[in-house]
Amino acid sequence: MRIAVVGVGLIGGSIGLAARARTDARVCGYDPDPGVRERALALGAIDAAAEDVAGAVADAEVAFVAAPVGALPEMVALALAAAPADCVVSDVGSTKRVVADACTDERFVGGHPLAGLETAGVEHARADLFDGATWYLTPAEGRTAGVLYERLHRLLGALGARPTAIDPEAHDRVMACVSHLPHVLANVLAAQATGVLGGQDGGESAVQLPAVGPSFRDATRVAGANSAIWTDIYRANAGALLDAIGELDARLAQVRTWLTDDDGDALTAWNDAARADRDALLGQGATGGTLRELRASVPNRPGVVADIALALGRAGVNIDDMALAPSRDNRQGVVSLWVGADQAERARELIAELGFPVVAA
Amino acid sequence: MRIAVVGVGLIGGSIGLAARARTDARVCGYDPDPGVRERALALGAIDAAAEDVAGAVADAEVAFVAAPVGALPEMVALALAAAPADCVVSDVGSTKRVVADACTDERFVGGHPLAGLETAGVEHARADLFDGATWYLTPAEGRTAGVLYERLHRLLGALGARPTAIDPEAHDRVMACVSHLPHVLANVLAAQATGVLGGQDGGESAVQLPAVGPSFRDATRVAGANSAIWTDIYRANAGALLDAIGELDARLAQVRTWLTDDDGDALTAWNDAARADRDALLGQGATGGTLRELRASVPNRPGVVADIALALGRAGVNIDDMALAPSRDNRQGVVSLWVGADQAERARELIAELGFPVVAA
Repeated sequence: MRIAVVGVGLIGGSIGLAARARTDARVCGYDPDPGVRERALALGAIDAAAEDVAGAVADAEVAFVAAPVGALPEMVALALAAAPADCVVSDVGSTKRVVADACTDERFVGGHPLAGLETAGVEHARADLFDGATWYLTPAEGRTAGVLYERLHRLLGALGARPTAIDPEAHDRVMACVSHLPHVLANVLAAQATGVLGGQDGGESAVQLPAVGPSFRDATRVAGANSAIWTDIYRANAGALLDAIGELDARLAQVRTWLTDDDGDALTAWNDAARADRDALLGQGATGGTLRELRASVPNRPGVVADIALALGRAGVNIDDMALAPSRDNRQGVVSLWVGADQAERARELIAELGFPVVAA
Repeated sequence: MRIAVVGVGLIGGSIGLAARARTDARVCGYDPDPGVRERALALGAIDAAAEDVAGAVADAEVAFVAAPVGALPEMVALALAAAPADCVVSDVGSTKRVVADACTDERFVGGHPLAGLETAGVEHARADLFDGATWYLTPAEGRTAGVLYERLHRLLGALGARPTAIDPEAHDRVMACVSHLPHVLANVLAAQATGVLGGQDGGESAVQLPAVGPSFRDATRVAGANSAIWTDIYRANAGALLDAIGELDARLAQVRTWLTDDDGDALTAWNDAARADRDALLGQGATGGTLRELRASVPNRPGVVADIALALGRAGVNIDDMALAPSRDNRQGVVSLWVGADQAERARELIAELGFPVVAA
């Protein structure tokens, strides 16, 4: 098989590495940056480098466009214009409706692998990047050529991914809610807290910083994510994101009513339901079992996390998720660990044996 | 000095342990649960257990009320009624205006130590729980007795804490923004995502779960926090929380305008400012230096986190914060680590030497 990769960064490079390692494909790559093309060649991510998009896709059977979201419609159009009549062209962008709307060609199938760090570059490309990863595909009903879709689907499976068809609107609605809206809220919270904290004395103050706790830290972790990527994503998914913000507003209005009415029962029911919702969304670990959270109080020094992780690792307990909230003086902190429910008691014992107070949350 | 502790859970018990270990104080404790009183005695958190609030505070010079937020006004009133005329009475609640409004006694000074897990119980009490922790105090201007405030302030210093005066309204406004609002948003996001994900096929679906990414995981980490605590907090701080939601609404309205206008420059400026805001709020590590984030792609198996933490620990690199985002198939994941900027390059090398692709974010 002949594969073209337009844009040889982390994702494009990983497609190349995986295809070359796991299939008999020949991979031709193009990147606007000649240095990136050279590195991709040197790293074995591509068999050959092309001087332009047309050269890369000229004899391809499958072409991936791994360009920034804002450049996708144009780059996909270039690829489609130059690709053979029986070549399937796909992309890897984080939003799907805009590019789907722009491409009415039966050879185009939008795609979005849920893997990788978008900014990391070809140096960090890996052949196993897509192992087990959902790879959304947005075939156009009644338009996408079946044979081409099947070829793409089969190739993605060979790369280790799990191709999953979804319509572009549903994809963007889901992403708006679970990714883009959290990014918006992180930005808003960071700005709002700066206003509140700065507002007390009109400027920077070490005294006020300790009030910024672990919930704020987590809620703003993605604040100010790479603008080169995120401005494009916000713009490309503006419609679904506006809808998501509108729904959030309506939900907040409900919370305001309960607060205004001092309705403790409603607040408790809402809070309990949120826990159940999150558990249902995230509580299924890799084993299919429920996760449990353990919280340990630990001195915040090098090696403590290692001690805990080692003790659990030796006992075969996998840490599904972890959050470390240090105190500002660096002397103590709280480690939250999520482990399979069936291993939680064993994990609790192991941590307690290390001398750290630990509680199942 | 004679200290009374009303409510001998994690905070109350830790006050007792710290006072007994670090001062010559005698600690008398009361808890509505007789079993808790016995455990507090057995653990050495208190010298003596009283049968009621009045018995605990009868001859106290400093009395701490460590009751749930909803019970605070009543418990503080009981303590004030029974305490000697020269006893300073304080509390440890997460909101301050309600209790401050309820207590016009010159002997009362509201307090809030930024330490501890509120639900953990006396079993997890530690003498060093408050080391370096900010302990907010809300003396009433023109009312709180100076000698009593000074006594409390000096005692908290002896317990290891950093007492910091703040007015109750400012305290609650700060907490509404950096703690209570993030909790509200976590709840709302969890519910909203459930609606969006469940809405596609009307029920549970494994296919859609992979779309729930690390930003959602972080943003909803505190969703459905213990209702026994949080319903009280929401109600006690309803005013400041309503204001905070109102401000969030206004900020979201601005974002909506930029999205509607497709104003990329404004979105970029807003996003960049959010990064600067968060860096200013959280970027100061324990060393006073800036933190940097490293992201490593790792296989998600027991021991990987240990390997990284050990390598960094051996090299004296402290991990200030950590977040682990596994893929759902448990085969790979991304570890984000925050380390001091001056140690970031060394940390990056150490992780790379372990064979994990790593990038400075």
